[in-house]
Amino acid sequence: MDTATVLQCAQGLKLIADTLDRLRDELRQLASAHIDTVTAGRTHLQHALPVTFGYRVAVWLSALDRHAERLTEVRRRDLMVQFGGAVGTLACSRIRIRSSARTRKFAAELGLRDPEITWHVARDGLTEIVGLLAAIGASVGKIGMDVAMMRSTEFGELAEPYVKGRGASSTMPQKRNPISSELMIAAAKLLRDKSSAMLDAAMQDFERATGPWHIEWAVIPEAFLLLSSSLAQATHAVGNLHIDTVRMRGNLGLTGGLILAEAVMMALAPDLGRQRAHHIVYDACARAAESGADLADELLRTPDIVARLGEHRIRQLSDPSAYLGSAQAMTNSVIHRRASN
Amino acid sequence: MDTATVLQCAQGLKLIADTLDRLRDELRQLASAHIDTVTAGRTHLQHALPVTFGYRVAVWLSALDRHAERLTEVRRRDLMVQFGGAVGTLACSRIRIRSSARTRKFAAELGLRDPEITWHVARDGLTEIVGLLAAIGASVGKIGMDVAMMRSTEFGELAEPYVKGRGASSTMPQKRNPISSELMIAAAKLLRDKSSAMLDAAMQDFERATGPWHIEWAVIPEAFLLLSSSLAQATHAVGNLHIDTVRMRGNLGLTGGLILAEAVMMALAPDLGRQRAHHIVYDACARAAESGADLADELLRTPDIVARLGEHRIRQLSDPSAYLGSAQAMTNSVIHRRASN
Amino acid sequence: MDTATVLQCAQGLKLIADTLDRLRDELRQLASAHIDTVTAGRTHLQHALPVTFGYRVAVWLSALDRHAERLTEVRRRDLMVQFGGAVGTLACSRIRIRSSARTRKFAAELGLRDPEITWHVARDGLTEIVGLLAAIGASVGKIGMDVAMMRSTEFGELAEPYVKGRGASSTMPQKRNPISSELMIAAAKLLRDKSSAMLDAAMQDFERATGPWHIEWAVIPEAFLLLSSSLAQATHAVGNLHIDTVRMRGNLGLTGGLILAEAVMMALAPDLGRQRAHHIVYDACARAAESGADLADELLRTPDIVARLGEHRIRQLSDPSAYLGSAQAMTNSVIHRRASN
Amino acid sequence: MDTATVLQCAQGLKLIADTLDRLRDELRQLASAHIDTVTAGRTHLQHALPVTFGYRVAVWLSALDRHAERLTEVRRRDLMVQFGGAVGTLACSRIRIRSSARTRKFAAELGLRDPEITWHVARDGLTEIVGLLAAIGASVGKIGMDVAMMRSTEFGELAEPYVKGRGASSTMPQKRNPISSELMIAAAKLLRDKSSAMLDAAMQDFERATGPWHIEWAVIPEAFLLLSSSLAQATHAVGNLHIDTVRMRGNLGLTGGLILAEAVMMALAPDLGRQRAHHIVYDACARAAESGADLADELLRTPDIVARLGEHRIRQLSDPSAYLGSAQAMTNSVIHRRASN
Repeated sequence: MDTATVLQCAQGLKLIADTLDRLRDELRQLASAHIDTVTAGRTHLQHALPVTFGYRVAVWLSALDRHAERLTEVRRRDLMVQFGGAVGTLACSRIRIRSSARTRKFAAELGLRDPEITWHVARDGLTEIVGLLAAIGASVGKIGMDVAMMRSTEFGELAEPYVKGRGASSTMPQKRNPISSELMIAAAKLLRDKSSAMLDAAMQDFERATGPWHIEWAVIPEAFLLLSSSLAQATHAVGNLHIDTVRMRGNLGLTGGLILAEAVMMALAPDLGRQRAHHIVYDACARAAESGADLADELLRTPDIVARLGEHRIRQLSDPSAYLGSAQAMTNSVIHRRASN
Repeated sequence: MDTATVLQCAQGLKLIADTLDRLRDELRQLASAHIDTVTAGRTHLQHALPVTFGYRVAVWLSALDRHAERLTEVRRRDLMVQFGGAVGTLACSRIRIRSSARTRKFAAELGLRDPEITWHVARDGLTEIVGLLAAIGASVGKIGMDVAMMRSTEFGELAEPYVKGRGASSTMPQKRNPISSELMIAAAKLLRDKSSAMLDAAMQDFERATGPWHIEWAVIPEAFLLLSSSLAQATHAVGNLHIDTVRMRGNLGLTGGLILAEAVMMALAPDLGRQRAHHIVYDACARAAESGADLADELLRTPDIVARLGEHRIRQLSDPSAYLGSAQAMTNSVIHRRASN
Repeated sequence: MDTATVLQCAQGLKLIADTLDRLRDELRQLASAHIDTVTAGRTHLQHALPVTFGYRVAVWLSALDRHAERLTEVRRRDLMVQFGGAVGTLACSRIRIRSSARTRKFAAELGLRDPEITWHVARDGLTEIVGLLAAIGASVGKIGMDVAMMRSTEFGELAEPYVKGRGASSTMPQKRNPISSELMIAAAKLLRDKSSAMLDAAMQDFERATGPWHIEWAVIPEAFLLLSSSLAQATHAVGNLHIDTVRMRGNLGLTGGLILAEAVMMALAPDLGRQRAHHIVYDACARAAESGADLADELLRTPDIVARLGEHRIRQLSDPSAYLGSAQAMTNSVIHRRASN
Repeated sequence: MDTATVLQCAQGLKLIADTLDRLRDELRQLASAHIDTVTAGRTHLQHALPVTFGYRVAVWLSALDRHAERLTEVRRRDLMVQFGGAVGTLACSRIRIRSSARTRKFAAELGLRDPEITWHVARDGLTEIVGLLAAIGASVGKIGMDVAMMRSTEFGELAEPYVKGRGASSTMPQKRNPISSELMIAAAKLLRDKSSAMLDAAMQDFERATGPWHIEWAVIPEAFLLLSSSLAQATHAVGNLHIDTVRMRGNLGLTGGLILAEAVMMALAPDLGRQRAHHIVYDACARAAESGADLADELLRTPDIVARLGEHRIRQLSDPSAYLGSAQAMTNSVIHRRASN
């Protein structure tokens, strides 16, 4: 029975790995296509500094790349043959003496690992498998969360692909719900509880458990279905996103250039010291926020700053695409990462 | 801040790995010392077939051996440097151009992995770390559960080491509570929720999360403390167990030899066919259970069986230590497993 | 859609309440039948003081009685009509002006509560419902755990009813697995995660959630099925338990009377002071444990104790049924509790 | 020990109830102040129909009002005295005969409920307490989630009160992080796991548990601290929110009036039939979305619609504050709800 479970897990993990690879391909292409698409970097839901959309996608991808590594290891380590009779000792087998050689052969034929000893009640393997499914689900759920938020009417930076009759409202024609993202989010949350259940089920008494074993029967197949569906949704959504680069750029302007205050501060710091640079820029920001003026204009009205940086440099510093740091280089590293599995 | 967290995790994982090694040593010795100590194998809390106590311990150990492998991988994969400023792009750094080389150097100095890109909101590494702590906790909790049950007045097969004033009752002098086991069980359950919390915290929005990040601050240190304490309790308890081998043997007799019905059935099967062998032995078992007689005596009163097996073989089959299958061989495999980390 | 969910919950809760009532009836009868059946009280799996089996059952029952109260309240409070259109405002309704009267009428017809305002995203009601299902499941799971343990070969104090082909092993005729108890235990653990999922799903954004709502669709029906099955198993098992009162009494003797050390101590305390009484009895216990003698015999060999208590009183104190405290009175209180729902 | 726990819970629940009342007062005032403040109703993060900000707040409040009811019941039901010695039977007490009267008196003095029987291992009361704390936490977490989202740079509809040095960034002067909301969100998630742990700890074996009991010691105090802090944060934030009603109104315009398509459709339906009305309005929406024109203008260019509704009615239908349904009436119902506790 355990071997049957493991053989199903083996097939399931193969499917998961394949779907994950497809999703990673989509993300790699998306990151590549938008490596220079400037957008607002957000921390605590506040504009922080500019990033590129490709960079955001590459961060999503980096987690999935590590998950692909983990999948490889889990498939190598945890898919173990079970062949031991009632209490795992192989006592019922007349061919006991040569049993270890036979078990090894049996395992090899099935493509499974042959463990040193029975794992009737050492469920660490199954626990790790479901734990990884849940962890992948969480990383996909994070994509769903970001997409759903960027899809909101106020952000308006992208939309999931339109599928007729899906995500539309019969009475509200303006609606286009982020259906795939919602399913990715929900799957992540449901998967978390599957992992929690497996950790509970890992405490199995003596040589076969009294209750906990039954948990696995419900949880393992559900976990595979949930992640499988989440990955399929993600691949569909990510592979066909409508990206509104104009709106991304437009949103960047929402703070009237305040998003680049740090850039100006850093440019002034060598001359003025970081403390004083901070003080001067902070004041300019406050005036800009109050008057509704653009920060650049406010800076150009501040003699102290103009004297030191000059108009050209101020205009330059006000360009978000000039303050991206290593965003594009990092994105490239992820895109061109040598496949490790 | 993330790098500081990871550095603490690095130290914590080192301590965990060391304590886990000590526990594995104790278990290896215990399995070795009791490789031939026959005891009742139990499935669903019913006597099933005989095993040895060393075999049970070796199954415990096998899970921890695999966890040791996992620890090695997790330490290699998930301890990543974080060096990227507010949104991870290194925009504020004036030394951006050479940043990747510098980051690599910085990582090497700290003994951390240098990832392709920022992991501000790709928390799969921290999630895997706490998930592993919880999984180890569950495997240790299973030991606690078995020990507590074997310690029960009715089983009476072992006792935790006596520490004056601990686990005793002021009014009930006969009591010796399995304190360490209880803490191991409780820690396993609390750790499960830490892992669940981290899976939740893994869904962090945009470039720095709005809420989920805070979860880590509470959960990560607690998870280390809980597992650390659980491992310490386990090492103490396992390393000083009082084993009552006489009681173990005595408990084996509780079913009047019924625990060996399978052995007799298997011995008769080649001659009679499995179906008929099952039928005859089942009847004998029923009579034995009813009369309170020992199964061996009942078998010796059954001409059909005596004719085929003879008295000597029947007595032999009634010896639990002759029906252990590969229990000892498997135990040896675990004990002498080449250390893989 | 929400109203449909609530109507299903209403029917489900009715079924649950009815099954719970049946289980409580069975428990009441069982407690009544065994109100004087002396058995070992166990704390931390150690014999502590004698109780009666009926007392243990009455404690099980007391939790279910309180759950029945909770069910009544939950059905009154949380089954709320939802009638508000897309965002809950009833904007689409042409009959807005009289809407509150109409909603009230609509609610009354359906037998539902008419809340002050839409609960599209105020899911506290559904959360409480599933939370209660999980809490009932845990109380039933505790029964399963106790039964499974008392059913273990070593305890042997009871058995689940025999159903042909269920819980038997094809190769091990002596086995009778506690199938119902295992399902009750597993259901409790799975229900816990349903409640956890609902607490997550309770955080629904704005006027209709982006993801969390979907969780309910999977979780609510599963929670009802799980508890329903658990209650059915419990009713079947509890209503047909085989109780082995001889074995219960026999197990009491396992500690050679040490279980009554407290009784002797308490009897000596008024004369000697509690400290000194403890000391003397503790020594006698140690000698009894060492020699394997019965505590009563050991006490009768201790002049100090004989002088103060006399042989008759010592024998009396050694009778477990004389040291039950208010166990029977409390059991009676539970059995005859005025039904509060 | 259990009675001590319950006494602390009694005090804790009193504090929680008081803080919850303060928060409800703040919400009542906020709902009242903004009962007519029109804002976009959002489902699946898409603009759906207009609501008022006061209505959104009243929905928050309605859940907390029901929680206040639950608190009252929980305090009445679950704060039970425990007075029974080692196994709950009161065997050690010399005053057994009158014990029930004494226990009743003891309970009354402490202001606790006197249960029919010991609850050593019937932990449904403590489970319900922590479950309710978690449920309240989730409802407060939902407020945090909405506030954090409305605070995002793109929504910009409100801000948490400014506290010097809190939520500000040293390098990004434009930032004002929603600190309280984040803590409310994090607390909700951590509380969920506390409730999950208590459901586990509710399965306590025999007369005192082997492991699960220890869980309570960590979980109960933490749960109180977490909710207490969450409520304090919420009261502070909600009581001092900066509301930007201009921005709320501005965001409503983001879809160029599409948010009111349903209103127009409903107005046309009696004449044209719902199907045809939907068709005509849907087309107008599509043209408006394409051209970037306002829906009202597009409708005024559609002879079919002008003929039936006239310009005045079309303009009227385009006013969000005319399509609020019963939002204000419902809000009033919540505000003026008779206090039920």
